Amino acid sequence: MQLGIIGSGSWATALAKICTDNKQSINWCVRSEEIVDHMQQRHHNPGYLSSVYFDTNLVNLGTDIAATIAASDCILIATPSAYVTATLNNLPANAFEGKKVLSAVKGILPDNNLLLNDHLKQAFKLPLSDYFTVMGPCHAEEVASEKLSYLTFSGIDVPMAKKIAACFTTPYLNTIVNPDVYGVQYAAVLKNIYALGAGIAHGLEYGDNFLSVLIANCADEMAGFLKKVGIQHIEVGVHDGEDPVTHRKTPNYAASVYLGDLLVTCYSLYSRNRTFGNMIGKGYSVRATQLEMNMVAEGYNASKCIYLVNQQIGAEMPIAETVYRILWENVKPRKGFNLVEKTLV
Amino acid sequence: MQLGIIGSGSWATALAKICTDNKQSINWCVRSEEIVDHMQQRHHNPGYLSSVYFDTNLVNLGTDIAATIAASDCILIATPSAYVTATLNNLPANAFEGKKVLSAVKGILPDNNLLLNDHLKQAFKLPLSDYFTVMGPCHAEEVASEKLSYLTFSGIDVPMAKKIAACFTTPYLNTIVNPDVYGVQYAAVLKNIYALGAGIAHGLEYGDNFLSVLIANCADEMAGFLKKVGIQHIEVGVHDGEDPVTHRKTPNYAASVYLGDLLVTCYSLYSRNRTFGNMIGKGYSVRATQLEMNMVAEGYNASKCIYLVNQQIGAEMPIAETVYRILWENVKPRKGFNLVEKTLV
Repeated sequence: MQLGIIGSGSWATALAKICTDNKQSINWCVRSEEIVDHMQQRHHNPGYLSSVYFDTNLVNLGTDIAATIAASDCILIATPSAYVTATLNNLPANAFEGKKVLSAVKGILPDNNLLLNDHLKQAFKLPLSDYFTVMGPCHAEEVASEKLSYLTFSGIDVPMAKKIAACFTTPYLNTIVNPDVYGVQYAAVLKNIYALGAGIAHGLEYGDNFLSVLIANCADEMAGFLKKVGIQHIEVGVHDGEDPVTHRKTPNYAASVYLGDLLVTCYSLYSRNRTFGNMIGKGYSVRATQLEMNMVAEGYNASKCIYLVNQQIGAEMPIAETVYRILWENVKPRKGFNLVEKTLV
Repeated sequence: MQLGIIGSGSWATALAKICTDNKQSINWCVRSEEIVDHMQQRHHNPGYLSSVYFDTNLVNLGTDIAATIAASDCILIATPSAYVTATLNNLPANAFEGKKVLSAVKGILPDNNLLLNDHLKQAFKLPLSDYFTVMGPCHAEEVASEKLSYLTFSGIDVPMAKKIAACFTTPYLNTIVNPDVYGVQYAAVLKNIYALGAGIAHGLEYGDNFLSVLIANCADEMAGFLKKVGIQHIEVGVHDGEDPVTHRKTPNYAASVYLGDLLVTCYSLYSRNRTFGNMIGKGYSVRATQLEMNMVAEGYNASKCIYLVNQQIGAEMPIAETVYRILWENVKPRKGFNLVEKTLV
């Protein structure tokens, strides 16, 4: 299988490293000719994980996204969710015909409030059976330094998900396959909201006892939402030749792609969501926090997306809803968390 | 209800603070006359949480355990698990007749491998319906500084558990009641084993990605064990007047008393279990680690207790078993964790 990679940030670079360490050749579409030249001459991505060496014999670099897609069987999309629609905007409607897409995009697309698979279905008629995700608790820096990590490959075509996962299985990367392609994407969105919530709690000077109770309840709230999403999407989970029972089984929400990713995000002191939340908890406005950090934490947009999605799903989400109301409806953090306190078990 | 407290360590002191802040008078049996004198004159426990002020009008201090029990309706036992049997040793067989016992003892008694309720049943014929526990993620230091915390009161007599919990409900302490008195005690034992395991992983230089996967899988392993314990103890969970269905329902293992306590213990950098495990992971022997730390981490004995208990329960516990084999059967940490790696999802 010929892999193509779109994106040149730290996560795209980490995934490219894994593949090439695995002697898997890749077509890699990066942002600029400067990056192409630097990588060809110096064997490093100048902007991200610059310590990672690439064997350029295995890397076919370019800046033309259509050419990368055309030359590949499976296209890994690894750009930040905010840039995805713009990146794919000029492609013809049949660009992904006969291709597999592997998404490393974490989050709902902010332009249209859609998961990437739903966007690709609308824009390119990509069937869900050709769509896969790679998710899990994975700081790119730890992949760069070859610390053992676990990634989960999801898709309703489980045999194909296994085949794709095999391209990434290396001594420092264990791969897991599951069919819950909707659930893992929502989990990746939710964790950022909860990490932002943990940051707000820290900013409000709650202690470690409270934080552990909060994060445990986040795990429970996430599982409740995902269970409801799973029921809603159950019909799409049945694919030719697959046992419907496999897809009706509730996933193990303590697995690394759900709980593990939540933990690494909530407990990481370097997380932007946590830092953003901390400032909000200390009383800064959203605007002041954005100016101070010179960026928007993913959990900020995510809290609104999930709030809107949950209008349909109807899960009980007192924590995620409180984060939304603090960020978007001017509820005071202290007041919001006084209500959260009462819901925790 | 007249409360009695046995124990004068940091956790006993924190619980005494909560009660007296709640204007609940207590009979408090401490270790020595020196402590009694100091507290009466200076209003502080000299040895633990010495910043906590006590209103001595609410505290009837003494050193005679039998007198404390006789004068109380509900006796809170808050001594380290290693000293419990010795502490209760000289009491007459009918000492607890007509009394409620509230256990804050975290761990299986190392002398006889029993949970405290089973020991009290053997030694004092205490029925399970008179036995309650107070557990949850609660650093005593955070209670001392009145950071909001959550404690769970468990007992098969749920109305009485609620009554006892009410003595501890204060503005900085939220109380939760559940009937799973066996499960919460095993959870309190297991978390120490897993924290020790997290320490070993850190000592072996795994990164944050791996740690989050490990802890997520610990949560799953714990839930699997507790579910099996619950099935075994289901018959004792049905109490006069209680709905059997309540007791047959699987508890919410993401609640604070299970997952929350696991998280605060595994992620605490100050935990003795974590420090102990870290040294083991770095290659120190158990004996050298004990000498260096001048103490034994609770997870060390717990790993053997649970290993033995699980011979009957038969849950799949690759992580807890590996910790046991590393500590007690001389398995090299690296070799043990190479096996754990393969079981994680």
